[in-house]
Amino acid sequence: MIYADNAATTKLDIDAFEAMKPFLLEEYGNASQPYSFANSAKRALKKAREAIAKCIGAFPDEIYFTSGGTESDNWAIKIASGEGDIITSSIEHHAVLNACNVMEKRGRSVKYIPVSREGIVELEYLENSVTEKTRLISIMYANNEIGTIQPIKQIAEIAHKNNCLFHTDAVQAVGHVRINVRDLDIDLLSASAHKFNGPKGVGFLYVKRGTQVSAYLNGGSQEKGLRAGTENVAGIVAMAVALEKNCNGINENREKIKKLEKIIINKLDNSGVKYIRNGSEDHIPGNISVSFKDLEGEMILHRMDIRKICIATGAACDSVNTNISHVLKAICVPEEYIKGTIRISLGKDNTEQEIKTLTDELIKIVSNADCM
Amino acid sequence: MIYADNAATTKLDIDAFEAMKPFLLEEYGNASQPYSFANSAKRALKKAREAIAKCIGAFPDEIYFTSGGTESDNWAIKIASGEGDIITSSIEHHAVLNACNVMEKRGRSVKYIPVSREGIVELEYLENSVTEKTRLISIMYANNEIGTIQPIKQIAEIAHKNNCLFHTDAVQAVGHVRINVRDLDIDLLSASAHKFNGPKGVGFLYVKRGTQVSAYLNGGSQEKGLRAGTENVAGIVAMAVALEKNCNGINENREKIKKLEKIIINKLDNSGVKYIRNGSEDHIPGNISVSFKDLEGEMILHRMDIRKICIATGAACDSVNTNISHVLKAICVPEEYIKGTIRISLGKDNTEQEIKTLTDELIKIVSNADCM
Repeated sequence: MIYADNAATTKLDIDAFEAMKPFLLEEYGNASQPYSFANSAKRALKKAREAIAKCIGAFPDEIYFTSGGTESDNWAIKIASGEGDIITSSIEHHAVLNACNVMEKRGRSVKYIPVSREGIVELEYLENSVTEKTRLISIMYANNEIGTIQPIKQIAEIAHKNNCLFHTDAVQAVGHVRINVRDLDIDLLSASAHKFNGPKGVGFLYVKRGTQVSAYLNGGSQEKGLRAGTENVAGIVAMAVALEKNCNGINENREKIKKLEKIIINKLDNSGVKYIRNGSEDHIPGNISVSFKDLEGEMILHRMDIRKICIATGAACDSVNTNISHVLKAICVPEEYIKGTIRISLGKDNTEQEIKTLTDELIKIVSNADCM
Repeated sequence: MIYADNAATTKLDIDAFEAMKPFLLEEYGNASQPYSFANSAKRALKKAREAIAKCIGAFPDEIYFTSGGTESDNWAIKIASGEGDIITSSIEHHAVLNACNVMEKRGRSVKYIPVSREGIVELEYLENSVTEKTRLISIMYANNEIGTIQPIKQIAEIAHKNNCLFHTDAVQAVGHVRINVRDLDIDLLSASAHKFNGPKGVGFLYVKRGTQVSAYLNGGSQEKGLRAGTENVAGIVAMAVALEKNCNGINENREKIKKLEKIIINKLDNSGVKYIRNGSEDHIPGNISVSFKDLEGEMILHRMDIRKICIATGAACDSVNTNISHVLKAICVPEEYIKGTIRISLGKDNTEQEIKTLTDELIKIVSNADCM
């Protein structure tokens, strides 16, 4: 099997697995309890919080553990905006877009900023969209379908100049590109462990000190009363180990993955097949969205699948639907190409041989689509 | 170490751990993806859903996976009530109470039904509290601090006679007492895996077919669009295995635990120490809340801790606070006893020898509190 769908989910790092094991098996104490048996869990949470904070340039008390990116996004969108209006982009993940829809149904105004052909938010449009009522600007760090990285620092500046909070859904970026929340002046940042070789079902929301945010999950006093529920200690520990490891290897991984990316692009360029590459120069390493003329992404995916190669069409969470993704529409992929879009997303474990095979098979499929 | 705090959390069942391992290590595919590599995850989710449904007498399509009891409760309270009023009890878990507080802040009316000395909801009071605007009645299946089981069937009848939905926070009950949601006519039921020897960070909400409930976490189309977020396959699989195993052994476990309970009570009765047992005859097996005259629960907990015995004071999620719990206040534990309350909660793994030692040490502490 060749796995090239790392933007959908990643393989759990073996060190992360080993780190979570004792908290599944022996150190099962409820971290909120006051007896000694819970101390190991408490210490592990503290250590994980410190490690995660360090990876993104935050303070440990700014990290709140959640069940994943969707919860983090919902929390930020539904709570941090208070009673104010929201501005977001037209290419956000559904965890942001659908949370925004709910806010609209509650009578709140939400504006959706268009993006360029490369998927970059139109900054002038954004700036002109802010009103006195705007309270939150939420723009993703990097897009899941096309990998485009947004001008985060400039967006944060626009937000703060206008007394708005700035939230970024960084689910695709954390662990893959270097992020410093302080340098970028981010107020809220969402992340999901399984996107950076951690386990599924755990993530975090970074909340800048001094930011007024109430709880989204109400109940016990965990996470300083801001995120109730017995802590998923094993998951949190594994998330921290995975993130630390990915961040320590971030340059090395990027170089390796960029090299693999080049192999794919060079092979495609030399194959003579008609394709467009989507996204921008500044993108998540290994996120390769390509559109083939007069083809169907789903057909390509399934023919790759027969060859035991995993790639995606459209967004991970939406691939059960055959609708054309909102992202590809927003970046105006030409009509004869849009349906033939696939996403190859590489990970740190992919080898050169795998990627050569993947590309050769892909070229065979797209250049001879009718007779597989 | 003697662990007697099973109402706070339980040890992960080893079979549940073994079942989750392949989904952590090899079968890491995103269950929402359409390629073959994701099939194993998809099948595992289906099988887990079926197993869990069977354990509570539900249909598989009535089970929605969540991140735990707190999320399930928040979903039920904040969403299922629509725009209507809510009735709950004065002894609910904070996941229900604090979610209700949020609804009150949003201008909704919430009534809190008092309970008897045994912790049983006053049914006449409940019935008289329903108005035309009441949309949801939420009463816990069993209390976490005192173990009292509520007259669920009668409460469901009152709810339905008045066109209300009935939600029950069954976090303490699922896997410990036999529950059939159809016989009891429950509309919504919350459960948490780590309370029945599953892992932390995963749970479910049962939603009766035909019940109009929208999503609490918005985003991707997982869980029929009602609970977004990449599925925590490993956690869900382990939850199902743990629940199935506990339900298969439910009679045997109850008999064993009831026997251990008797050892504690007999020893306490014969010791001459002044104490009250809280709760009702019909209670969660092994949940033993006892109050000692003129003592401090915290002192008892810490002296037990020195002897490597884990017990609780008040509710698990609140034991960092020294406030007297709302449950003990609501059941009117006499003033000279209330501060001296501890909770021993037994599990299927406790042995007779452990329980004898635990009780002997407890009696030593409480009968000679000043000179440990």
